Formats: sequence, C-alpha cells, structure tokens
Amino acid sequence: MRIDIISAVPDFFEGPLTSSIIQRGQNKGKVEIQIHNLREHAYDKHRMIDDKQFGGGAGMVLKVEPFFDCIKKLLAERNYDAIIFTAPHGKIYDQQDANRYSLMKNIMIICGHYKGIDDRVREAFATEIVSIGNFVLTGGELLAAVVVDSVVRLIPGVLNDSESALDDSFMDGDTIGAPCFTRPAEYEGMKVPDVLLKGDHAKVKEWREEQSKILTDYWKKINKIGAQV
Amino acid sequence: MRIDIISAVPDFFEGPLTSSIIQRGQNKGKVEIQIHNLREHAYDKHRMIDDKQFGGGAGMVLKVEPFFDCIKKLLAERNYDAIIFTAPHGKIYDQQDANRYSLMKNIMIICGHYKGIDDRVREAFATEIVSIGNFVLTGGELLAAVVVDSVVRLIPGVLNDSESALDDSFMDGDTIGAPCFTRPAEYEGMKVPDVLLKGDHAKVKEWREEQSKILTDYWKKINKIGAQV
Repeated sequence: MRIDIISAVPDFFEGPLTSSIIQRGQNKGKVEIQIHNLREHAYDKHRMIDDKQFGGGAGMVLKVEPFFDCIKKLLAERNYDAIIFTAPHGKIYDQQDANRYSLMKNIMIICGHYKGIDDRVREAFATEIVSIGNFVLTGGELLAAVVVDSVVRLIPGVLNDSESALDDSFMDGDTIGAPCFTRPAEYEGMKVPDVLLKGDHAKVKEWREEQSKILTDYWKKINKIGAQV
Repeated sequence: MRIDIISAVPDFFEGPLTSSIIQRGQNKGKVEIQIHNLREHAYDKHRMIDDKQFGGGAGMVLKVEPFFDCIKKLLAERNYDAIIFTAPHGKIYDQQDANRYSLMKNIMIICGHYKGIDDRVREAFATEIVSIGNFVLTGGELLAAVVVDSVVRLIPGVLNDSESALDDSFMDGDTIGAPCFTRPAEYEGMKVPDVLLKGDHAKVKEWREEQSKILTDYWKKINKIGAQV
C-alpha cells in the first residue's frame, strides 16, 4: 500500500510516522508513506502557499495552484483509490473507514491548514471528505496521522501475533475491550480481580465478556451512540 | 497553563508539539508542555514498562509501577485540575471539552499504548477518560496531541488577530464554516463565487450564512448528529 500526504507543515509528521508500528510497516515493505511539502509546489517568487480570503474575514487560505501542481503530478504517476480531504464538514472518521482504506492500493490525504483550502481544490479532486470529530484543530495533519496509524496496523503482516488486532476494541462493531492487568497481582493495596489469576479460561472469558458489555453500554450511553437507531 | 503528558513513546511528540501555533504558545509563555518518558520511571533492572496480561490473551499491558511513580511525583509538585486518561471507552472528545480544559491551570494526560494500561492506574488517579472516536489506534498519543492543539489555540494571546478562532467551525455549537477562496479569481476554468468578489459585505455575510447552513445540515445528516435530540 502507498499513502501520499500533502501538507503545509510536513515537519509535523516526524514523530508520528516514525513510531514503532508504522516504522515497522515501512521497514517490512508493507506500506510506503510519502509526505509532500506544499511549499515545494509554489512557483511564485516568494513561494507563497497562502493568501487572504475573498470576501474578507480573518484567517489565511491555502492557495489553489500548489495543490493542483502536486496532486496532478501524483495522478500522472499512478491511480488513487481515494483522494481524502480533511475538513470540519466531513464524515467523522471511524473504524469502518480504516478497514476500507486498508484494502486499498494507493490513497492520497490532503491536509487542510489555517482557515482552510481554496474550495476549488476539493471540487476538482476530492473523492471523500473526512473529519476527525466535533472540535477545531490547527490543521488536518493530526487526522492524517490518525488515518495512517489506524490503517497501517490493519495491513496483514504489520502487527506481530502478540499485538494481534483481532480482539481490540471496535474490531467487531461497537465493542469495547475488558480492562487489562499485569504483574504484580497486588500493588499498594490494589488487587487484580481474582478470576484473572486462577487460570480458568472459561471463567476469564465470561468475566471479560461481562466487563466488555458494561464498558460498551457505558460508552454508548455517554456518547449517545446507537440512541438514534 | 501547564500540560503534563505521560507516554511510553515520547518521541511521538517531536513534530506535533513543535508546530507553529503550539510552539508560539510556549514561546510566549502562555503554555508549558512537559512530556514524561514512562521508561524513566521503571526501576527494575531491565527498565520494563510492559508485561503480559493476567488471564492470558494477546497484547502487552503497561505496568502499574512506572505510572504510579511518575504521577505521584507530579502530584507532589502541584495540583491538577484534570487527570485525563485516553481509552477507547472514554467520552468522545469535543469542542466543549477543549473549551473547558482551556480554562484550567494544570492538566495531566496519560497516554495508553499497546493493549492498554493496568486498570489500577485509572482507578487510582483518573478524573476523566476521553476517547478520540470510534476507531483503534496504537496509542493515546494522537489524542493527547489533539487535546494540546485544540486547547492551546483557545488560550488568549496564542493566536494572532488574523487567526482569530471566533468564526471557526464549531465555535458556536455545531456550526460548520462556509467554503473559502483566495486568488486567482479564476483558475483552470474554475471561478470563485461572484458574490465574494464584489465587496458587498451584507451579501457576503448572507452567502456565507447560507453556505454554512448547507454544510452544517449535510454534516449533521451524514454523521447522524442531533438525530437523537
């Protein structure tokens, strides 16, 4: 799989994309991630990538030409299964999107920044618009990093067995995993639930399912998930 | 404001926390952000921070002792208005949380990683649990970065006038901003809407409100927001 990210602040990705699992996915050849610096596609003498918005108002808008240049170059090299724009009015990203993207060959992620991107870029190229949630961020870079992290870990061969994603929260719909514990069995008077220490696999399974149901119901309630169905 | 983040993979934060606005907030003395490396609080000879989970099953669990050590040291130095745990079953983070945190003096963010944190850490210290959304990530670091970005930009004096957050999407509830455009007025046959070029402020305002309503309705519909109210 190949992921191309276009950003006005490419340095953002230094930490997030060199983290263990994503780095491993790249080292194993399972995923290639290319960050494109928008500024390298600005050809006026000051390499301007932003400008004041038409109609007045606060905030700088990312200009149309550098995006057109960068996106067209990428499209000339290969086909993309998705050209994803990050914007507040997008579909709120979820695990189904991650599953879907993880089956694709080439995806492109266009990060908004400042006040936003000249809307003609979206009109010309976007195949989908995603949002990370109901809050304001400085740019779409965090969402791009979320997409990469959630997608790369689904590519077969990236996680090793002990990290198996299969029983993670959300893998089978809207289910939260049970609480987990490790040694010591008692610490500062706080004890690990007895059932986990006794080696009765059937009882452990039962306890985990029970706990998982409690947490899932709580999570749905506080986040009003499923209430409208 | 001071933000302390405890993480098993502190290098993650290199890019995200040195981005323009967050860096400026720190340079101006409006916010102090400290990243704590969990491994520096592990005292056994191998500096282990994770271990297999009780009851069996895939995935490593972050151990209780390093968190207790780090959190207790921080609590000995100052009071915290919130000790925020990142976990899948948390309240899904939104702009109201960002607004609330931005008024606080000291907050601590505890990043889950791998299979999760020994649940006794949450039991002993968490004042709230937040989730970034309905998807699986390798760790809570991305959510911590989301909290920092969305909170720091709200601290008075961090954004300059031209970045004014006041008319951003979501600032007055669930409202999405209108599309934005900048020069050139025509590019590859694509024109900026006439109304934005004519300098009639009343008409610009009317157009933006109209567009904002269209996008907001669309966004609520695709994300099923408000349907349960």
